[in-house]
Amino acid sequence: MNPFSKTFKLGILGGGQLGRMLIQASIDLNTYIKIMDPDAEAPCKYLAHEFVQGSLMDFDAVYAFGKNVDVLTIEIEHVNVDALEKLEAEGVKVFPQPKVIRIIQDKRVQKQFYKDHDIPTPDFVLTDTVEDVAKHVDFLPAFQKLGKAGYDGRGVQRLKSAEDLGKAFTEPGLLEKAIDFEKEISVIVARRSNGEMETFPVVELVFHPVHNLVEYLFAPAQISVEVEEQAQQLARKVADKLEIVGLLAVEMFLTKEGEVLVNESAPRPHNSGHHTIKANYTSQFEQHLRAVLDLPLGSTHIKSLAAMVNLLGEAGYTGDAYYEGMETVLQIAGVYPHLYGKQTTKPFRKMGHVTILDINLSSLQNKVSVVRDGLKVISK
Amino acid sequence: MNPFSKTFKLGILGGGQLGRMLIQASIDLNTYIKIMDPDAEAPCKYLAHEFVQGSLMDFDAVYAFGKNVDVLTIEIEHVNVDALEKLEAEGVKVFPQPKVIRIIQDKRVQKQFYKDHDIPTPDFVLTDTVEDVAKHVDFLPAFQKLGKAGYDGRGVQRLKSAEDLGKAFTEPGLLEKAIDFEKEISVIVARRSNGEMETFPVVELVFHPVHNLVEYLFAPAQISVEVEEQAQQLARKVADKLEIVGLLAVEMFLTKEGEVLVNESAPRPHNSGHHTIKANYTSQFEQHLRAVLDLPLGSTHIKSLAAMVNLLGEAGYTGDAYYEGMETVLQIAGVYPHLYGKQTTKPFRKMGHVTILDINLSSLQNKVSVVRDGLKVISK
Repeated sequence: MNPFSKTFKLGILGGGQLGRMLIQASIDLNTYIKIMDPDAEAPCKYLAHEFVQGSLMDFDAVYAFGKNVDVLTIEIEHVNVDALEKLEAEGVKVFPQPKVIRIIQDKRVQKQFYKDHDIPTPDFVLTDTVEDVAKHVDFLPAFQKLGKAGYDGRGVQRLKSAEDLGKAFTEPGLLEKAIDFEKEISVIVARRSNGEMETFPVVELVFHPVHNLVEYLFAPAQISVEVEEQAQQLARKVADKLEIVGLLAVEMFLTKEGEVLVNESAPRPHNSGHHTIKANYTSQFEQHLRAVLDLPLGSTHIKSLAAMVNLLGEAGYTGDAYYEGMETVLQIAGVYPHLYGKQTTKPFRKMGHVTILDINLSSLQNKVSVVRDGLKVISK
Repeated sequence: MNPFSKTFKLGILGGGQLGRMLIQASIDLNTYIKIMDPDAEAPCKYLAHEFVQGSLMDFDAVYAFGKNVDVLTIEIEHVNVDALEKLEAEGVKVFPQPKVIRIIQDKRVQKQFYKDHDIPTPDFVLTDTVEDVAKHVDFLPAFQKLGKAGYDGRGVQRLKSAEDLGKAFTEPGLLEKAIDFEKEISVIVARRSNGEMETFPVVELVFHPVHNLVEYLFAPAQISVEVEEQAQQLARKVADKLEIVGLLAVEMFLTKEGEVLVNESAPRPHNSGHHTIKANYTSQFEQHLRAVLDLPLGSTHIKSLAAMVNLLGEAGYTGDAYYEGMETVLQIAGVYPHLYGKQTTKPFRKMGHVTILDINLSSLQNKVSVVRDGLKVISK
């Protein structure tokens, strides 16, 4: 495999913002990119060498798309894995591997995987029906998570006590003990087919209190060296046990007792790594490309302190996106909006992010406040 | 003008590597980009929203291209300025302005401009014919530069003494006193229409001894604070006197006496600023976009020491490009090849560049040597 040859093609399932940032990174390596997405106006459309509209869950569509590429990767894990397995059996390099996607795709299987490999994770019970949930009322307060189809905060809810059973999901899922955590942190690790791994420094996530989306993050996390090492080792262990080729984002809880527990993983570039485009020697997107193209992994060394604020559609606005306050935030040194090319805003839709750089943590934090308050995605 | 509106269009004349890197930066701002280039397979072709094949020197082609964009800019100064003037008169925002391009396009006019505005520059005489050159034999050794059509080292040659008169160019040009310089340096400055300016830190250029192309550079330059300030002020003065809107790259000589003289300027992103993509808060490409889109200019703060090595086609090879040594250089921490998407290599064709980051100057220099020796563009 020579990814620099003129016949080489990389296929990406999914043409959203993660695919778009993968393409942006791929320009440096001059990689030929073919994208499939169900949305005819997906953010990647005009940037890909080839764009195919098709359902990522449809066997035939995924199989046909993957048949003439050299390497096939994903920017979203909700894809037809049967088609990927057939492509893999027929010689297409599929990274991350179908077996990895299958484990991560179903949160029940993913949790069981952690348990089977002695990877610390919050206690859980699997539930098949709402009656199962009711049986475990003594396990509450807990998060109920659907096994499948949860993404960007969907399919996850908190059940506080027996009173909440009425709103319980009816599909197969799991109940996960609510952790009284100190911080939520994330480590992105890349693994190459020869087992070589590189981790990015730990980042510290702050979630939106209602919508279960990352609201902003700081990098590197303000944690002890011991916790940093523990988190890095845990991420490496998950990647190693999965034998993943590509990027793995491992979200974790740091408990008040200083314990690090794996929350969940994503086998692809991740929202918690967007700041790496500006703040690290190698971005998560270039790193993913290097891993799946079987190139040496890059240094994850930090160039600057960074924060990342997600730019979500404001509640109450649906329509053509208008970025209120853009001119003002652009005036601040070290503030970099990154828009995703989505024309229509909707409440809490991820429309972009803002990377913020500074040499000083407290002025970085001040800038985060100014950006969170000052830049809004509305429609007019 | 709202560059974030869904109807906004930015036109770029030229679709080479500079246009390509402008597009790469424009993805963050979600700017709609329309490109014209004479080459049907120009590096920008597949990345632009719209691509038009056409001659940049043809009045009708340039006029038709520019007529339906909101802002028109360039990535090469060899364009039809009459068409740009007509577009400007009809309300298209053309940045840099046609009057600026006209001054810089002709090296004779450019040199006279420096003289008229007390901008220190090596002594020169204008020559219209080869006979004129012969009259100034006492001015040699000097560089003979053609007024027009010089680019990437073409149209420039050193005339040592009367013996060299036989090879003198016959077209109008100038003779410029050869300077016994200590270093060649460059400052990139951005200017917005309200007069706001931002300069990038001075970089130190090392030219190929034969081909008059930048072979590699270091940033920031190893110079005194006084020289740094002198060079920055000079760049600001040139930009201010030109009243340019957009980016201006000012190449300078640092003489052995510590004097800074302007060599020549380019009204666009420049080879001496490619490292800013990875090494500075704001890249030269984002800065150019901010300037021509009338957005606040970004901080040029340095994130890392950097070097940039141009990746030129090896002598003796013409054909499909093959990057020998790529895997090896990718193994070095902080080494980032950036390819320009040109399928065919030719001797000394700019095929890409390599950005090198390090926290230490001497190991940075070592990496430069390894990359220069280790990575070759050949054909097989």
